[in-house]
Amino acid sequence: MKHLITCEQFEIDRLESLFALADDMKANPELYHSALSSRIVATLFYEPSTRTRLSFEAAVQKLGGGIISTENAKEMSSAIKGENLLDTIRVVEGYCDAIVLRHFDDNAAQDAASISHIPIINAGGGAGEHPTQALLDAYTIYSYKQTIHHRSFALIGDLRYGRTIHSLVKLISLYDGVKVYGLSQEDRKLPEVYIDYLQARGIAYQACERFEDLPTDIDVLYQTRTQTERFANGTSGEFVIDKKVMEQFGQETILLHPLPRNNEIALDVDGDPRAVYFQQSHLGLYARMALLDTLLNGK
Amino acid sequence: MKHLITCEQFEIDRLESLFALADDMKANPELYHSALSSRIVATLFYEPSTRTRLSFEAAVQKLGGGIISTENAKEMSSAIKGENLLDTIRVVEGYCDAIVLRHFDDNAAQDAASISHIPIINAGGGAGEHPTQALLDAYTIYSYKQTIHHRSFALIGDLRYGRTIHSLVKLISLYDGVKVYGLSQEDRKLPEVYIDYLQARGIAYQACERFEDLPTDIDVLYQTRTQTERFANGTSGEFVIDKKVMEQFGQETILLHPLPRNNEIALDVDGDPRAVYFQQSHLGLYARMALLDTLLNGK
Amino acid sequence: MKHLITCEQFEIDRLESLFALADDMKANPELYHSALSSRIVATLFYEPSTRTRLSFEAAVQKLGGGIISTENAKEMSSAIKGENLLDTIRVVEGYCDAIVLRHFDDNAAQDAASISHIPIINAGGGAGEHPTQALLDAYTIYSYKQTIHHRSFALIGDLRYGRTIHSLVKLISLYDGVKVYGLSQEDRKLPEVYIDYLQARGIAYQACERFEDLPTDIDVLYQTRTQTERFANGTSGEFVIDKKVMEQFGQETILLHPLPRNNEIALDVDGDPRAVYFQQSHLGLYARMALLDTLLNGK
Repeated sequence: MKHLITCEQFEIDRLESLFALADDMKANPELYHSALSSRIVATLFYEPSTRTRLSFEAAVQKLGGGIISTENAKEMSSAIKGENLLDTIRVVEGYCDAIVLRHFDDNAAQDAASISHIPIINAGGGAGEHPTQALLDAYTIYSYKQTIHHRSFALIGDLRYGRTIHSLVKLISLYDGVKVYGLSQEDRKLPEVYIDYLQARGIAYQACERFEDLPTDIDVLYQTRTQTERFANGTSGEFVIDKKVMEQFGQETILLHPLPRNNEIALDVDGDPRAVYFQQSHLGLYARMALLDTLLNGK
Repeated sequence: MKHLITCEQFEIDRLESLFALADDMKANPELYHSALSSRIVATLFYEPSTRTRLSFEAAVQKLGGGIISTENAKEMSSAIKGENLLDTIRVVEGYCDAIVLRHFDDNAAQDAASISHIPIINAGGGAGEHPTQALLDAYTIYSYKQTIHHRSFALIGDLRYGRTIHSLVKLISLYDGVKVYGLSQEDRKLPEVYIDYLQARGIAYQACERFEDLPTDIDVLYQTRTQTERFANGTSGEFVIDKKVMEQFGQETILLHPLPRNNEIALDVDGDPRAVYFQQSHLGLYARMALLDTLLNGK
Repeated sequence: MKHLITCEQFEIDRLESLFALADDMKANPELYHSALSSRIVATLFYEPSTRTRLSFEAAVQKLGGGIISTENAKEMSSAIKGENLLDTIRVVEGYCDAIVLRHFDDNAAQDAASISHIPIINAGGGAGEHPTQALLDAYTIYSYKQTIHHRSFALIGDLRYGRTIHSLVKLISLYDGVKVYGLSQEDRKLPEVYIDYLQARGIAYQACERFEDLPTDIDVLYQTRTQTERFANGTSGEFVIDKKVMEQFGQETILLHPLPRNNEIALDVDGDPRAVYFQQSHLGLYARMALLDTLLNGK
C-alpha cells in the first residue's frame, strides 16, 4: 500500500495489522516518538475540515514529524481551471514526505496518487470516500468488541447520502457472519447498490422502521447526522437516540457517531458508558498514526 | 491550578512562583527545551487574535511541544447552536495535552473547563477575562519594579470597557500599599464596581482629569486603546501620551500598553527607555511559558 | 548579510556560497537536522501565498526549527493606518528568531529591516522584489548548467510586469559572458530600464518576435505567466511552449517557470527531461534552507 485513496484498499489482514499497530502506539507511545523524525507531512486542504486536519496534525507530531498545512489550497491554483491540482501536487511533493489531501472533487485523491512520488492520503471531500473515517470506525469496533466477525450493526439516520455509512458497509462486509440493520426515514434509505453489495457477500440486510425492530443485544448502533440541506423536511421524523431509546439495548451494545452531531443523539446519552463516540474520535488519532507509520515507513 | 480561566485564580504566591519560573526560563532557556517534549497544545480560536496565538505557539515550541491550531474553530460546529463548544472540546482533548481557547462568549472557557480532562487556558474573547494578558502585565511590572507591593499606578484611557484595565485592577489589589489613579474622559470612567473592589481592599482610588494631576514619581503608567466603535465621539479628547507628557515623569516611571496601539501613544515616545510596551509583549512569552509548564507538568 | 530584502544584495561570492551550502544540504540532509534547533521562524504574511509559505515552513523544519505562522497578518493591525507594520514587527520579533515577511507594500521588508533586531527575509509582495524566487531560479540554473557564466537566456512572456524576470535580469547580469533574448508581445516588452541595466554591464539584449529567432542551443528558456488582469487582450497571442516548440531546441536547453502556470506551458511538455520547472520548485527548498542557515547562524 503506497497511498490510501479508497476504503476498498482495506483487506482484513491489512486492517488487523493497522489495528495491532494502533493498539501498540496507544499502549507504548514512547516507542513511536521518532517514527517520523525528520519527515514532513503536508495537510493540503481545498476546503476546511478542522477536525480531520487537527487529528492528522496531532498524529504526525506524536510520531515526531513536522507539518506544513493549508486549508486554503485553492489559493495555490492559477486562474484557469484544469490541471492545477496535479501541478500543486508536483510542487508540494517537493517539500514533504506525504500529502494528506482534502478536496471537493471525488476523484482528486486518485488523480493525485496517479502522479505523486510520495504517499497520498485521502482525507475525504465531495460526495466520495473518506477512508480514514472508515478506518477509525472499524478500529473503534475492534477496540470495543474484540473483532468485527459475527457482529451485528444498526445503521441509523441518513443511509442515503451518509458517506461514512457507505464506507462502513464496505468494511464490515469483509468480515464473516455479520448482520446489518438499517433504520431510516423513507426518503433516506440505504441505496440498492449497497444492499446488493452486502448480499453478494452473503450478508443479510434488514430495513427497519422503529428502534423496537432492532435486536436488544445488537453490537453496534451507528448513528449519523442528517445532511439537512439535502431534505425538504429537514430533520423532522428523525431517529433521535436518547436515554430512553438506549434503555432498550443491552450493556454490550456500543453507540458510534462520526461527529459532529446535531440533535440526533440527545445530550442525556453522553454519560452512558455505551456511548463511545468521543472515544471513537480519540481512537482515530491512533488509527491515523498507524496509517502514517505504515505508509511512510513501508510497513 | 488545573485550568486558567479567570485572573481571580491568581494569588500572590501563585503569581510569584510563575514570575520566578518565567525569570529562570528567560535566563536559562536551554534548561526548558524539553519541558513539553512529546506534548501537543491546541490553540483553538473561535475568532482570530494573531498576536495572542503566535505568542502561545512560540511559548509551546520553546518548551519543545507541538502545536495544532485553528483560528476558524467555528467551522467545527454543526449547524444547530448549543452544545457545540463542549462537543468540540471533547473531540480536541483527544488530540492534545492542553487547549488554549479563544472564544467570543465570556463563559466559554469556564464551560470548557467544566468538562475537560486536560488543562484549558482562557486566551480571552468577548467582553470577559483575558487572564494571560493580566499575567504578563503583572510580570512586566514585577520585572521592572522588583515587586508590585507599594507601587503606584495610573490607569489611562478607556477605563470603562478596557478589559485589561479591569483585570489589572484585580491583580494589583492583591498587593499591599498600592495606589491607583484613573485618568479618562467623562464617558469612559472606571465603573463603580471596580472602585468598590479596590476600596474593599483598602486601596485608594483617585480619578484625575489631567496628566498634571498624577504624581511625577508614579511607578506605572498603563495606557489603553480606546474601543472607538463604542463611543460616539471616537478618540477626540483622548489622553495621548507623547514625548512632552513623558517629560513630566521621573526616570523610574514605566509606560505599559497591551497593544496594539492606535495613536494614544505617540511614536516619539518609542525611543524612551521608560516606554516598555514592546518588552511587555516579549516578557509575555516567558509568562506564558511559565504558565504552560506549570499547568502541564503539575508544578 | 543580516536581512534579505532585495536581490541586489546578491554578489557572486555570496550566491556561490549559498549554492554550495544548498548542494550539501541536498546531499547530506542529516547533517543539518539540528541547524535551527530551538529556533523559531515566523512566516508573517499580509496576503496569502501558500506555495512560498509552505516552502519556507518546510525549509525551517528540515533544519529542526519551529514555526509560527499567519497568512492573516493584516488582522494584527489596529484600525488606524500607518506605523502598524513596525509595531507588529516589534511584537513578533519578541517571539522568534527570524521573520519571513510577505507584504503587499513594496517597501515593507525594507521598513521592517530598518528596525528589526532579528533577520527579515523578504518573501515578496506588491510589484516589488521576491529575492528568494530569484535565488532559487539562479540555483536551478547553477544546478543544471554548472555555472551561470557564459550562459544564454531567453526570457519569455510578460517581460513588462513579470517580477521574477526583473530579478533574474539583475542576478544574471552579475556573471560574465551572458546573453539575453526577450520574447514577448508588443505590449509586454522588457522595460528600457532593464535593457539599460544589462547593457551597462556589457550584456547584449536582443528582443525577438518568434521562437525561431532564438538559438537552438540556448541554455535557459524562462517562461512566465501573463498577469492576465493587466492586459486588455488577456493571453491572446501568448508565446505558448508546447512539445513542438521544444523540438526546436537542443538536449542541453532547460525550461524554467516560476509557477503556477496557466496554459503558457502545454501539458505535453511535462514529460520532457528539459522541462525542470517542478525540480526548480524543489531546489528552492534547499536554496531557502541555505539562506535560513546563513542568516540565522551567521555564516
